[in-house]
Amino acid sequence: MNIAGIICEYNPIHRGHTHHIQETRRLLGEDTAVLCVMSGNFVQRGQAAIFEKHARAAAALRCGADLVVELPLPYALSSAERFAFGGVSTLNLLGCATHISFGSETGDLAPLHAVSECVDAPETLARMKAELKKGVSYPRARAHAVYSVLGEQAGVLMTPNNTLGIEYLRALKATQSSIAPVTIPRKGAQHDSAGAESASFIRKQFQAGSDPWPLIPDGAGDIYRAEIAQGRGPVFTEALEIAILSRLRMLQPAAFERLPDASEGLERRLMRAVALCPDIQSIARETKTKRYALSRIRRMILCAALGVTADLNRLPPPYVRVLAIGRCGREILSRARETAQVPVITKPASVRRLGGRALKLFELEAAATDLYTLAFDKKVRQGGREWTLSPIVDTE
Amino acid sequence: MNIAGIICEYNPIHRGHTHHIQETRRLLGEDTAVLCVMSGNFVQRGQAAIFEKHARAAAALRCGADLVVELPLPYALSSAERFAFGGVSTLNLLGCATHISFGSETGDLAPLHAVSECVDAPETLARMKAELKKGVSYPRARAHAVYSVLGEQAGVLMTPNNTLGIEYLRALKATQSSIAPVTIPRKGAQHDSAGAESASFIRKQFQAGSDPWPLIPDGAGDIYRAEIAQGRGPVFTEALEIAILSRLRMLQPAAFERLPDASEGLERRLMRAVALCPDIQSIARETKTKRYALSRIRRMILCAALGVTADLNRLPPPYVRVLAIGRCGREILSRARETAQVPVITKPASVRRLGGRALKLFELEAAATDLYTLAFDKKVRQGGREWTLSPIVDTE
Repeated sequence: MNIAGIICEYNPIHRGHTHHIQETRRLLGEDTAVLCVMSGNFVQRGQAAIFEKHARAAAALRCGADLVVELPLPYALSSAERFAFGGVSTLNLLGCATHISFGSETGDLAPLHAVSECVDAPETLARMKAELKKGVSYPRARAHAVYSVLGEQAGVLMTPNNTLGIEYLRALKATQSSIAPVTIPRKGAQHDSAGAESASFIRKQFQAGSDPWPLIPDGAGDIYRAEIAQGRGPVFTEALEIAILSRLRMLQPAAFERLPDASEGLERRLMRAVALCPDIQSIARETKTKRYALSRIRRMILCAALGVTADLNRLPPPYVRVLAIGRCGREILSRARETAQVPVITKPASVRRLGGRALKLFELEAAATDLYTLAFDKKVRQGGREWTLSPIVDTE
Repeated sequence: MNIAGIICEYNPIHRGHTHHIQETRRLLGEDTAVLCVMSGNFVQRGQAAIFEKHARAAAALRCGADLVVELPLPYALSSAERFAFGGVSTLNLLGCATHISFGSETGDLAPLHAVSECVDAPETLARMKAELKKGVSYPRARAHAVYSVLGEQAGVLMTPNNTLGIEYLRALKATQSSIAPVTIPRKGAQHDSAGAESASFIRKQFQAGSDPWPLIPDGAGDIYRAEIAQGRGPVFTEALEIAILSRLRMLQPAAFERLPDASEGLERRLMRAVALCPDIQSIARETKTKRYALSRIRRMILCAALGVTADLNRLPPPYVRVLAIGRCGREILSRARETAQVPVITKPASVRRLGGRALKLFELEAAATDLYTLAFDKKVRQGGREWTLSPIVDTE
């Protein structure tokens, strides 16, 4: 039995994701078990997830996943490179994944491999440095440098899923992973464009009060509807604005200096903006320079509010936390019990025994959830929720 | 010229307050200058003030005050004893107040003096200790002990303004102050009862959307109306609930231990309640024991959110900050320039030069205002407001 790792956010899950899981099985064998590493209550674009992580994990089971584990906050709220490092490291640490499957616009590993090798070559790095000196953004400098070395193959860097795929390949190499990559051509639209296979579009439907349900796979829709009925979501970062501003305004300068991506004065720009601006949007706008994408600034803002510091995603995670167990989930877990290099956590309380880095990370997750739940209906926005949630089990 | 100090909150100011100022002048001479020491954006009952401190100070000028200075946050958010200590110390430090005038239900200094002497007598303290052992609240234990020594005179302890008056007398004695106390019989209702001379009643009118304006002196009403038109208030603690919860949920255990009134496990009860409860009301309810008044718990909650620690009200304030200058305000200030034992601050920026305890306290005030302003309309809820506000001058 193959075990295919998928690094994901499912924010929310849509038919494009279902298609990706199905195609992965078609490629690797119908008995392939699907092991998802999914971001938690805050996602890579620097926003609160639309539904709580356990609900999103349960929805993933309904769409074909067998086991969902968490990509810890410090990796989820970081650059594509650290996001990929966190996801690939989690699969490495579990020790039982045979493959990693990711969607890409190209659908072809060859150009992604070529670019991923090229990106770290000394010649490319030198050209990048020259480009960066001109003041262009990091992704653009990289694209230019790779283009000047590889020519047209560099074109794969133009689209977001290819770019993330390249980071997975780099992370596999950097961690000397034995996991084999496969890529599935991404169906339909890009992240932010309108369309049925865009999580971003579906979130906008929710936010606008339009009907998002036709765009969501049925089983997943049931889960999300139940969440809404319970007063948990849909969550939008806007609902947390006062909660976030309240924290930002009490931070000491040292806290800004410890932020991920604190470099070249960006943290000082952020600190000044926090001191003056009336809302998150204007803080982000005031902090942004042409070198940095807005999502990076939004991530910094969330990291500041949640206490995520730069040091927290340098090493692989100290544990793997299980969010949801599906049909073949127990089989993956029993394999992992033999192969895992770090504790695999199902009951939150067990983290207390681990202490050290593991306990610190879990406490960070718990604190993040304590902020996240402030966006729930008052009757269900109790604190301490993270410590009460065991994995969702759905093995039908 | 006499200078009468009045320690106050004016939250908001009403005809009872105007009456108190007028009666003070009738008693001490019509040329008496009135110097108010007023709490800032958070008040002694553990709530956000209904209007910003500068607006409340400006309203006080319209009602007969000549100069309004700030009672710093760590004294405002504390017990009657520390509140009185902070207010009396501020008057002492200015060095130019000849009298302190306070309202009381009795209107007679004699029983207040008698009780204030009795409260600190060894015999009373011994009896109090015995009462406290029975598990009754501190005010009740004190009342019983004083009653057992003084008999019926202890009855003055039954009402809130008498009780506060006794604390002023104790603070005058404890600080060996040369300021002479006078008391004005309080007209009309007590703090929390319905009626035209109750700030609490007027706040409820605002909150219920009823018409509060007939209860507010005209000049003050103009100030408050202008504030509302600008999007600044009326502020209710409820509007800050998410902002406060957001901060409480990120506090480390050590922060709870440093809180004022952290004793007998109250701080641990609060910490547990914060971890579990969905709102401030339920946190307060869960934390409360029969020994402690709800306002004490509410103050602890605000202190936790604002970073006010127990050590901050032990010493007299390191500066006196001017909020508003009225008709004889400049004359009081020029006297104070000769008599003051600490810097008298008009421009916020000057605090930077003072450094040390003064700068720390001002930064605490600035941070508190940064939380407070989150209750303003979005367009005017910028951070950094505390550093931009010079005294209101209204010398007509």
